[in-house]
Amino acid sequence: MKIIVLKFGGTSVGSLERIKKVAKIIATYKKKKLGVIVVPSAMSGTTNELIKKTLELSNNFDASEYDVLLSSGEQIACALIAGRLKHLGYKARSWMSWQVPILTEGPYGGSRINKINKNRILKFINSGGIPVITGFQGINSENRITTLGRGGTDASAIMLSKFFKAHECNIYTDVDGVYTTDPRNHSKAKKINKISYDEMLEMASLGAKVMQPTAVQDAKLNNINFSVKSSFIKKKGTLITGNNKAFSDKIITGITSTKNDSKVTIIGVKDKPGVAASIFKPLFLNHINVDMVVQNISLNGKETDLTFTIKSEDANKTKKLINQNKKILYRKLTCDKNVSKVSIIGVGMITTPGITYRMFQALAIKKINIMVISTSEIKISVLISNKLVKKAIAVLHKEFKLD
Amino acid sequence: MKIIVLKFGGTSVGSLERIKKVAKIIATYKKKKLGVIVVPSAMSGTTNELIKKTLELSNNFDASEYDVLLSSGEQIACALIAGRLKHLGYKARSWMSWQVPILTEGPYGGSRINKINKNRILKFINSGGIPVITGFQGINSENRITTLGRGGTDASAIMLSKFFKAHECNIYTDVDGVYTTDPRNHSKAKKINKISYDEMLEMASLGAKVMQPTAVQDAKLNNINFSVKSSFIKKKGTLITGNNKAFSDKIITGITSTKNDSKVTIIGVKDKPGVAASIFKPLFLNHINVDMVVQNISLNGKETDLTFTIKSEDANKTKKLINQNKKILYRKLTCDKNVSKVSIIGVGMITTPGITYRMFQALAIKKINIMVISTSEIKISVLISNKLVKKAIAVLHKEFKLD
Repeated sequence: MKIIVLKFGGTSVGSLERIKKVAKIIATYKKKKLGVIVVPSAMSGTTNELIKKTLELSNNFDASEYDVLLSSGEQIACALIAGRLKHLGYKARSWMSWQVPILTEGPYGGSRINKINKNRILKFINSGGIPVITGFQGINSENRITTLGRGGTDASAIMLSKFFKAHECNIYTDVDGVYTTDPRNHSKAKKINKISYDEMLEMASLGAKVMQPTAVQDAKLNNINFSVKSSFIKKKGTLITGNNKAFSDKIITGITSTKNDSKVTIIGVKDKPGVAASIFKPLFLNHINVDMVVQNISLNGKETDLTFTIKSEDANKTKKLINQNKKILYRKLTCDKNVSKVSIIGVGMITTPGITYRMFQALAIKKINIMVISTSEIKISVLISNKLVKKAIAVLHKEFKLD
Repeated sequence: MKIIVLKFGGTSVGSLERIKKVAKIIATYKKKKLGVIVVPSAMSGTTNELIKKTLELSNNFDASEYDVLLSSGEQIACALIAGRLKHLGYKARSWMSWQVPILTEGPYGGSRINKINKNRILKFINSGGIPVITGFQGINSENRITTLGRGGTDASAIMLSKFFKAHECNIYTDVDGVYTTDPRNHSKAKKINKISYDEMLEMASLGAKVMQPTAVQDAKLNNINFSVKSSFIKKKGTLITGNNKAFSDKIITGITSTKNDSKVTIIGVKDKPGVAASIFKPLFLNHINVDMVVQNISLNGKETDLTFTIKSEDANKTKKLINQNKKILYRKLTCDKNVSKVSIIGVGMITTPGITYRMFQALAIKKINIMVISTSEIKISVLISNKLVKKAIAVLHKEFKLD
């Protein structure tokens, strides 16, 4: 029997009405005589509610108990979906990750699936059943529950597709696919029919919230095609497939922007060998992810300015760590939260020269000042004032013929 | 190491503030160098919220998924309590019933614990840890989650006490013990210091909501002493111990009343052998519990009236079943929800004659009409109008010197 994996995100199962809708979608696949595996997230809001509880009990809530707590959300969603399917006359049942089992490795709150035992699930599918499996979690070698990090149900869906050699994998969410840019930022955004793993990975990492980046990486590594589609409206979604392939004649596939970056500048740092390492080491040790970095050329050979971006939620911690850092001397520390990273992504830029120039030129004409730049093989990111994000997206969307 | 089992009811863990308080109570036992096993219920309200969800999805929600759903409540409570204990510096961790494991048999929604594997928990306790184990649930021979029925965490606590040969078992709840009668019904109610299993069993079955009757039965069968006490105020609770023993000079130990009984009367039933069985069989098959029964003497040898009580939630179903019942002929069917069962309970009545008379006489003087009577070795129950309950309790409380 051909197997299809259906993942439903938090908003797709966000109310009982929506769970009824989801059950209907599942039924349409079952009627096609497919072996259907369902993997839902927790109902939207649930996870945040639970996190709020931990904050009131401890400023450093134990990571393993955090996972026990959060994993209950998917347990609830699975039971409700399976119950609804049974109500509609289908053979269905919920499967907790320990019942499958789904085995994980790595830290609590950020583990990865390394094995899924297929036997029981396959037997159930072959008997005509629809297994509804908890996403976002698994059990580790100590028989304890671990979670896969925010958005981890995407990774569950991809890994289920891998282990069950699924014919198809559909990621149902609240948007009907991946867009050239966030439609809320630009009215001319267009849905992308087909996109490569690499482009999707960059887009997911650079602010497009459709998918968890780790899941895209898992899909790329295991060469698993998947579609992103809407559980609310019946429409063809976006197919994610193939490495570094261009699926259209456009050079740029999509444009993203971020909302929660902060720019930190250390002015007048005493310039000596190893100063950057001295600054970044304590940040690394405290799990603060430094993204874009630029170091000015030291004019007098003695002092330099260092600018980098971090997630805004890390801003206070970062400032504190730099203040406490006795290995560096500097004159002033500034932190600007009113910035945004705008990125253009496309495998087409590998073979097309001059994209950087065209991007900078288009922004310059609109008098949009670029603070920091970072590039990879298939993306160019610039840091700009967040007031200018919509304007920047509009001009870039037009420049690269995405309108 | 001496082991103590601490059960915390839904209201005791009903808010984060209360969970903090519970963690403090646990700590006081740990400081006494006891091996502490904690078994909490779900936070109050959680279970009802989840049940409400099932009702919207199906009028006959699958029993096995119902158990998966409901069991998540204790998972959440365990993670929060264990997390709080770790925050306070204690070695603690949550244990799901499948991790222990706690094995059950019997139907979903009403299973019973038949085995608890001690090894892992004992190892954890001996290493100085405080296990926080999910109450109300276990896993059956098919490796699926089952629940023990409403109030089932009491049974979990008793069975944990049994398997771990606990030195002490404390049931923490929102009242500070078992009272001679519900203090909300009668201001002169007194706390009972010590009560026998049998009396407690009758009281729990007859409307005192302090304990789940099954749990009291388990305690009786396994001869496990336990205390009921308050998690809100520090006070000696009530000790439940010993079969059919009187622990005071009072003949009557307690008085209970119910709130959700309905009285059904079938008037003018054609009287022939087996008519009562014909009436009760379909009710039994539909899991409707018939409690008190009285059949009038058939005056003309042809017709009789039959009166019985059921839970009010079963009233509509009962009327429907009797209407559809083609094996019986009757003239009229009435159903009265404004009734209440008032019971006096005490092992003292085994050896003291005349208790029935004293009860009826005391009620008669206050002009309280008795509709139905039922008795056992250690209790007498009467059905009266629910408007007269407080009056009846007051007169009986005084008559039997409980004031």
